[in-house]
Amino acid sequence: MNSAKGIAAVVRIVAKPRYLQPARIRQQLHTNGRRKSAAAGKAEASNPAMVFPCLDAIESKSATLEARSLSSGPEPSYTSGVTLKYRCEEPLLLDWGGVLSEFDIAYETWGEINADKSNAILLHTGLSASSHAHSTVNNTKPGWWEKFIGPGGCLDTNKYHIICTNVVGGCYGSTGPSSIDPADGKRYATRFPILTIEDMVRAQFRLLDGLGIKKLYASVGSSMGGMQSLAAGVLFPERVGRIVSISGCARSHPYSIAMRHTQRQVLMMDPKWNRGFYYDSIPPHAGMKLAREIATVTYRSGPEWEQRFGRRRADPSKQPALCPDFLIETYLDHAGEKFCLEYDANSLLYVSKAMDLFDLGAANQAATVERRAARRQLLKSKARESPGEASCSLTLPDSPYKEQPDANPPADSDTSMTQSSGPPQDLVNGLKVLASHPTLVMGVASDILFPAWQQREIAETLRKAGNDTVTHVELGEDVSLFGHDSFLLDLEHIGGNLRRFLG
Amino acid sequence: MNSAKGIAAVVRIVAKPRYLQPARIRQQLHTNGRRKSAAAGKAEASNPAMVFPCLDAIESKSATLEARSLSSGPEPSYTSGVTLKYRCEEPLLLDWGGVLSEFDIAYETWGEINADKSNAILLHTGLSASSHAHSTVNNTKPGWWEKFIGPGGCLDTNKYHIICTNVVGGCYGSTGPSSIDPADGKRYATRFPILTIEDMVRAQFRLLDGLGIKKLYASVGSSMGGMQSLAAGVLFPERVGRIVSISGCARSHPYSIAMRHTQRQVLMMDPKWNRGFYYDSIPPHAGMKLAREIATVTYRSGPEWEQRFGRRRADPSKQPALCPDFLIETYLDHAGEKFCLEYDANSLLYVSKAMDLFDLGAANQAATVERRAARRQLLKSKARESPGEASCSLTLPDSPYKEQPDANPPADSDTSMTQSSGPPQDLVNGLKVLASHPTLVMGVASDILFPAWQQREIAETLRKAGNDTVTHVELGEDVSLFGHDSFLLDLEHIGGNLRRFLG
Repeated sequence: MNSAKGIAAVVRIVAKPRYLQPARIRQQLHTNGRRKSAAAGKAEASNPAMVFPCLDAIESKSATLEARSLSSGPEPSYTSGVTLKYRCEEPLLLDWGGVLSEFDIAYETWGEINADKSNAILLHTGLSASSHAHSTVNNTKPGWWEKFIGPGGCLDTNKYHIICTNVVGGCYGSTGPSSIDPADGKRYATRFPILTIEDMVRAQFRLLDGLGIKKLYASVGSSMGGMQSLAAGVLFPERVGRIVSISGCARSHPYSIAMRHTQRQVLMMDPKWNRGFYYDSIPPHAGMKLAREIATVTYRSGPEWEQRFGRRRADPSKQPALCPDFLIETYLDHAGEKFCLEYDANSLLYVSKAMDLFDLGAANQAATVERRAARRQLLKSKARESPGEASCSLTLPDSPYKEQPDANPPADSDTSMTQSSGPPQDLVNGLKVLASHPTLVMGVASDILFPAWQQREIAETLRKAGNDTVTHVELGEDVSLFGHDSFLLDLEHIGGNLRRFLG
Repeated sequence: MNSAKGIAAVVRIVAKPRYLQPARIRQQLHTNGRRKSAAAGKAEASNPAMVFPCLDAIESKSATLEARSLSSGPEPSYTSGVTLKYRCEEPLLLDWGGVLSEFDIAYETWGEINADKSNAILLHTGLSASSHAHSTVNNTKPGWWEKFIGPGGCLDTNKYHIICTNVVGGCYGSTGPSSIDPADGKRYATRFPILTIEDMVRAQFRLLDGLGIKKLYASVGSSMGGMQSLAAGVLFPERVGRIVSISGCARSHPYSIAMRHTQRQVLMMDPKWNRGFYYDSIPPHAGMKLAREIATVTYRSGPEWEQRFGRRRADPSKQPALCPDFLIETYLDHAGEKFCLEYDANSLLYVSKAMDLFDLGAANQAATVERRAARRQLLKSKARESPGEASCSLTLPDSPYKEQPDANPPADSDTSMTQSSGPPQDLVNGLKVLASHPTLVMGVASDILFPAWQQREIAETLRKAGNDTVTHVELGEDVSLFGHDSFLLDLEHIGGNLRRFLG
């Protein structure tokens, strides 16, 4: 679907005799010392060698970072700007047995909390988004949901107290792999424990405890936040009023795991990643850039790309290149470049892995509950050996954390049903605890990462679990062309439905 | 969609107290010299560091290859086994101005050619497939379409003489980047010229000339071969009887370009790639492996993955890992590993780029024709300066290569139409030359790389161009669950329709 503009450009090539160009390139190459050893010889090659501006750019970025780290130190400077901070010194036991002996939650809020603290909405972020969903007095930079939040907005700050946190495992002020391990004073790096979406939610509820919020008016989230939003209800059903899950899922599926796998691999393959221990050196910016490019394909590809990029080349007057050449390639290159130093590589690995591990099925929940209980037992016996004082720095909850009671292993363990035969019983059992929560589930037909069948699955599962207050909205390709990222862009449909649901 | 087996495994974890494992891992790590500098200290970290068997494997592979190249030399050994070979010493002018002054085409055949040479079918391969579509007397290894070819088969060797070539640009015996540039006696590497799908087809028709085959009974291909199959008809309409294009397209779209872009980038980012000049050293096996993993996602993901892998972990008794962990990850890892030394990295770059550049629209054809004419003019004037003898080593064609006559720039240059409003006029103009060729177009609904709308586009375009002998078959998810690779697997539907069409 070339546009008329693209065609005009192609015609322009024809007007300039293109075949004169290779000679120019050849000349450049013969003066390029780097290639001499390989390409130089007595005889001249049949065709000129290629140039690789994309690799030159990576090398030059490394050199710049090297120089900068000599002058200012290699400390990473990931930040979402000024945030509030909640410090909890009561250890957080993670689902896979790891422990954060203390941790911080960086967060931001909009709108006043009411007298009985009943108007709080917890807003969950996507993988790499920060708590900065909207500008604040302390940080006037527009947030990622700037237009969705405000007085009279879809998340109405006249009515609600919106809280958005930076997830544990991330790098925007909440404890994550780039934080200092209090046990030895060094950065966690890949000694950070494996964490789950549920662990992130547990940490968020510690913050709610600290803020004295017993029950949320609503739990709202998109993408990974859509997972968290459901998980909040499942872990703390008494503390969540209503649930909004946008472009999320109740469990990850193989394609999304596969795509995140390739991102992790490309990042870990960057020699600068150094198995996670790069904090004293140059970060793996090339691996991060490319991981983000792959991610961007999963976030944005959709019919919009056909219209926006089609088959247009960035500069049709040039020979095709192995480096970015088509507009879609330069777009991806730019997206990767913009991100590569904005987010911590280890955070990407851990948070991405947490998404893969997400599964609200009853079997997984039951296994987790058992694993946690056993681990807690072990930790208790250790604690008796060396008792210590530990508490969160605001207030402690009135009652101990009440998670979902141990679920019995599902009577019906047949979870191999295909989607066409309805939601698997294991998932229905896992979501039974949400049978009476008013829930809004939204999905976008052009989403390839969290495809629309996953949101249909949530809705059908909840209904089969007995919930008759489920609203399911699927935005067709006639409305939302942006794929997964529609939740960031479609104020009218995503925002409008959200507003109507919250009331 | 966990299977009952997956669940059983999860339950098994619970039976063994998993929380005892981290201690074991910690012990391993403290004896691991590589980590000492980063993780060792007086105090003990809160949590154990992770192990990275996937990176260990890459390092160990590099070491093995290093040792091997010391003993046997670093020559690449890509081969599709014993093939026939056709050597052409008449220069091949490529679409973007490069020239192969001489080239080889490695090929294989099945079934006898008839007296008037009217029963030849040219079978085009996918990106990385070789000419070995079926076993031969000289190479008994099963081919990639073993079950599709044979006496009474879908490609019936009792009736037809099937020819399958290795594409120019590849690494299975036909001239490509790993070949020696006759101009200077060194490997082309990235001095190989940019090539197009049409260039590959031109080289194939030189072979047909050499074999004395004036007209093909049919041009048949899948995936990239589906592009070539159409291109053969467009370039040599008089020499192609009928056309079969399976899971191909008439022009590449942004998602497929984007996915190939990420593969090229990951490969070029491997330091061992060395801007293409790795033939005297260790090949970029890690980059190739990962590029293949990304490719595999685009080839295979589909509903079948939900059933085959679901959310099952490779070894549920282990802690989740950042290295491959879920079954889908180990599957991708294995697919990448199997491929990483089987195909030449530079060939992957060039052939993948050729796919991106594919566009049978009239504007692109017209621009190419003009560019070629200008380039030919330049080469002629050079040739007058230093005349030489050049010919193909079998027979020369009776008449000069007659490509499609110069197309006028399309009267209607509006190509920005969306798919819903029908095929763009530019493409209709580009395929007008196929208005009377019986054509079979097949696609698979679960294909994400060459989505079904692209084959619908071919069929609609041909019909709009006046072709009333188009057969279009779209295999729904109820029939073919394998995504793009269905063409390799679905003998019943892909093969059956092919057989019926060829008659």
